[in-house]
Amino acid sequence: MFLFVHFTKVMINGGHLNLGNIPIMLQLTASFKPKDCVKTPIKVIFKPMSTIETQVVIVGAGISGLKAASDLHKGGCNSCVVLEGRDRIGGRLHTVEGYQGRKYDMGASWHHDTLVNGLFEEELGLPLEQRAGFVFDDDEMIMFDKDHKRLDMDPNMVLEILQGELLKFIELQFFESLEVKDRSYYEMIVKYLYQRRDLLTDDQIKYLPQVCRYLELWHGCDWKTLSSKFLEIAHQGRNAMVLHYSTIVKRVASTIPEEWIQLKSEVTEIKRCQNKVHVKTNKNKIYICDYVVVTVPQSVIELSLHPEYRRGRIEFIPPLGPEIRNAFTKTHYSALGKVVFEFENCCWSKERARILSLGKSSTDFTNDVRNAQSYESLLATLQNKTQYHLENGQLWEFPLYFVNLAKTTGVPSFVMLMQEPLTSYVESLQDKNKAYQFFQPILEGLLKTLGNSNPICVDFDNKNATSDQDIPVLKNLITTNWTREEFSLGAYSACFPGDDPMDLIIALTHNENSRIRYAGEHTIMDGAGCVYGAWESGKREAALILKNLQGL
Amino acid sequence: MFLFVHFTKVMINGGHLNLGNIPIMLQLTASFKPKDCVKTPIKVIFKPMSTIETQVVIVGAGISGLKAASDLHKGGCNSCVVLEGRDRIGGRLHTVEGYQGRKYDMGASWHHDTLVNGLFEEELGLPLEQRAGFVFDDDEMIMFDKDHKRLDMDPNMVLEILQGELLKFIELQFFESLEVKDRSYYEMIVKYLYQRRDLLTDDQIKYLPQVCRYLELWHGCDWKTLSSKFLEIAHQGRNAMVLHYSTIVKRVASTIPEEWIQLKSEVTEIKRCQNKVHVKTNKNKIYICDYVVVTVPQSVIELSLHPEYRRGRIEFIPPLGPEIRNAFTKTHYSALGKVVFEFENCCWSKERARILSLGKSSTDFTNDVRNAQSYESLLATLQNKTQYHLENGQLWEFPLYFVNLAKTTGVPSFVMLMQEPLTSYVESLQDKNKAYQFFQPILEGLLKTLGNSNPICVDFDNKNATSDQDIPVLKNLITTNWTREEFSLGAYSACFPGDDPMDLIIALTHNENSRIRYAGEHTIMDGAGCVYGAWESGKREAALILKNLQGL
Repeated sequence: MFLFVHFTKVMINGGHLNLGNIPIMLQLTASFKPKDCVKTPIKVIFKPMSTIETQVVIVGAGISGLKAASDLHKGGCNSCVVLEGRDRIGGRLHTVEGYQGRKYDMGASWHHDTLVNGLFEEELGLPLEQRAGFVFDDDEMIMFDKDHKRLDMDPNMVLEILQGELLKFIELQFFESLEVKDRSYYEMIVKYLYQRRDLLTDDQIKYLPQVCRYLELWHGCDWKTLSSKFLEIAHQGRNAMVLHYSTIVKRVASTIPEEWIQLKSEVTEIKRCQNKVHVKTNKNKIYICDYVVVTVPQSVIELSLHPEYRRGRIEFIPPLGPEIRNAFTKTHYSALGKVVFEFENCCWSKERARILSLGKSSTDFTNDVRNAQSYESLLATLQNKTQYHLENGQLWEFPLYFVNLAKTTGVPSFVMLMQEPLTSYVESLQDKNKAYQFFQPILEGLLKTLGNSNPICVDFDNKNATSDQDIPVLKNLITTNWTREEFSLGAYSACFPGDDPMDLIIALTHNENSRIRYAGEHTIMDGAGCVYGAWESGKREAALILKNLQGL
Repeated sequence: MFLFVHFTKVMINGGHLNLGNIPIMLQLTASFKPKDCVKTPIKVIFKPMSTIETQVVIVGAGISGLKAASDLHKGGCNSCVVLEGRDRIGGRLHTVEGYQGRKYDMGASWHHDTLVNGLFEEELGLPLEQRAGFVFDDDEMIMFDKDHKRLDMDPNMVLEILQGELLKFIELQFFESLEVKDRSYYEMIVKYLYQRRDLLTDDQIKYLPQVCRYLELWHGCDWKTLSSKFLEIAHQGRNAMVLHYSTIVKRVASTIPEEWIQLKSEVTEIKRCQNKVHVKTNKNKIYICDYVVVTVPQSVIELSLHPEYRRGRIEFIPPLGPEIRNAFTKTHYSALGKVVFEFENCCWSKERARILSLGKSSTDFTNDVRNAQSYESLLATLQNKTQYHLENGQLWEFPLYFVNLAKTTGVPSFVMLMQEPLTSYVESLQDKNKAYQFFQPILEGLLKTLGNSNPICVDFDNKNATSDQDIPVLKNLITTNWTREEFSLGAYSACFPGDDPMDLIIALTHNENSRIRYAGEHTIMDGAGCVYGAWESGKREAALILKNLQGL
């Protein structure tokens, strides 16, 4: 191990000051601001950079990074470091404790595709005491709307069946030719309604669009930003809610030498130097390695395409190539958010696990569809009528998905899923009471739908406001913060109209000789956006590196 | 036009007597029997054969033949004849009248795949008074079993969701490689249950298999004869029940010159003679044509592969080639049958249109699955326990599908769909009372499930047995006869384990220069087994012949 010092780039938000490659570390005084960057005196502190040689650096201790490290260790690699910016491992797997120690996964919380899910299979192969628990929680979804009307399984409207037909309608559009223009899910729904209006009842036209928006809660973004071409979710088996992912994170981490994992180590630069890669951190360390596996979220990689400094950003030297740059024009990032509502006890129906609160439906909408002269004119008519006005508390513009934990785990809480742009808004509130006020009408509608019409009693301060077992007493509310955290900036990759998710996957993985490697949910087709996909991608990169290291 | 006489083969059931090519027609006396064929005197009647020249002969006046004739006429062909063995047009589209003139389609009765169904689209383009009516009748299916237990939408068993997972499980088996052996649907269900038993509850293992058997009512054969590889039905849009297909048959037929259609004309021979085809009928006519379009069902073509005489059989000269012969080893024919139960008035719930009566589930079965040491040993254990014993009235071995017309059309009748081997058995009964006795337990279970527990009062003789509006009075029962009719011999093409339906389609259609052409539901991929598929195949052949005739 040897030491050296050198100048580096000083990057500040909104512009940067390049001091060349002179061996000095800079620390900026608090008074330093972009606008007066020339006049302000800069306090220069010389700090020694320590360099460390290692075979592999893994950037990020999420499930893909941990799995890669685990497999590298098992495969005989004895020199690896996992650099994690946060003060915890797990990344977007994050189990938190709430009221009375109840646990919730605020990030991913299901095993999806359980017929093909390698992580799920691995879990099944473990002794019971080593496994994370899980519960299959798919069942038929309850749907209610602002008027507290039940809309699921209505034998006359058959909205579930129409939704299936609509998705097939969309799929068939793109079968016609490869050149068919991708439109938003919203536009495609309007197209279906317009073209098939003679085969639909007024009520079907009214309610179907809001029912279809259920998919927003899979993709984490709203129907207007969602690609209709890459909309379909082909489930490969049931979904099992994990209890809880922290167990799996800990289990995988336990197979890695403890000293490999460095928390609060933010990678700031990744630089190719001949046959080596230099990975620099905020702790004045430079890791000189044969391979680096970058597992930071797609949203964080994207920061590297722009010169502006932001915490979490990695400076790539040389910069990311045109293939990756172009691929980023064909992919986006969404933000599935969650709010957990914790009640004192369960005073509602435990019959069903899944409840969808629908966005407001309107008869106006039906009339617009009926009277439209053309599809395009209908789109124009609807344009203004389907805007969001969040600041006015127009919450009923969004479908929201509730998991009734009382049924599946016996815990008297609801986990609510929400989508962009709602997630950013709610996560920005940063206040339990404000968040509760925002969701109160829907929460009351939910409880009423589940058979309890009593008003909610809020008791965040734990004053035990009532002893009536039939009064729903809300003890706590937990909100995610993914859109505001520098190391996530949202939830996972998503397709906007015109995107093609394959481009980025190919760009990040096709060169098997590259020493800068990528893993994570955004780097794999099978299991894209899923925990097991991320896990498989870590497995993939470890296998490739082990193979290559043997050749060195 | 000219006349000639010549000897022909005399074929009799169980053997044939070849008299060579001497110009004589034979009519056998009633006393003629195979065993004494040498000793018995044969009464020889000379009958003149009339020959008729025509551009096109269409064999069969089902929807594919009628559509072909219609398009040929529209396209300028002025010399065509449609030879139909039955005394009616429509083939397997057959609308009958029942009690008080109520109408039922005993053959096909739905527009399937209404997003891509060309016939449906054509209908939509017509003035209302020219269209056949239709009603979208998909809704969530009620399921009940022998114990009158409701099994649909059970939030704990979630059998519908498990069925989806099982179908995906089967699909994934065949993704593994092209060499995966096709097994029966039954064997694949057992495989799923065995492999996933740790993830299933006892009740799920008990009931799921019977729920999955619902697909038997699409394919017309039972789970043990059904291919698991070609099981999936990819619906392209909702299903619309047609009211009634006779309207469509008449409409298409009305576009054809009346004299083109020859009823009761059974084609007995199709012979290639240089550039012409000679088509011989039971009416001593030989049609000499440029093209023949054979639209008889797959089951009837199959008779031509064997020398035995059967009514409906066509002798091909030269015989059907090896490609077609081989293809017949890769395809089969099923028999979806129907029984219509006509009641005096509706005294049951009209809420749902579709009800499935399930085959008997057993706890024994669950135990066998739980205790099995291997998949193969489980199959062996179950072998005898899953046999049918129809003669003992073991009706609860089969799932049966009921359409509640009271909901969709207001007619107080149920249309029941059944599968082989049940169809053959029931169609052989040829007796209303016997059929009723056979189905009575299920019919009572059905009514009880729909809210009426009163015993059924049978009044086939129209004696008006009761005036109590709550007593279900069964006025009539109508059974299909497809398995016994010479010109159908069942319902439509089906895939048994190991089959590949593409082979026959390719064999029958790939040679665009052939003068012997084929149309019908068994000759087309898109819409295979469906009315619109048959209709499209007729369109296809007419277009091809018109193109070729222009070149003549």
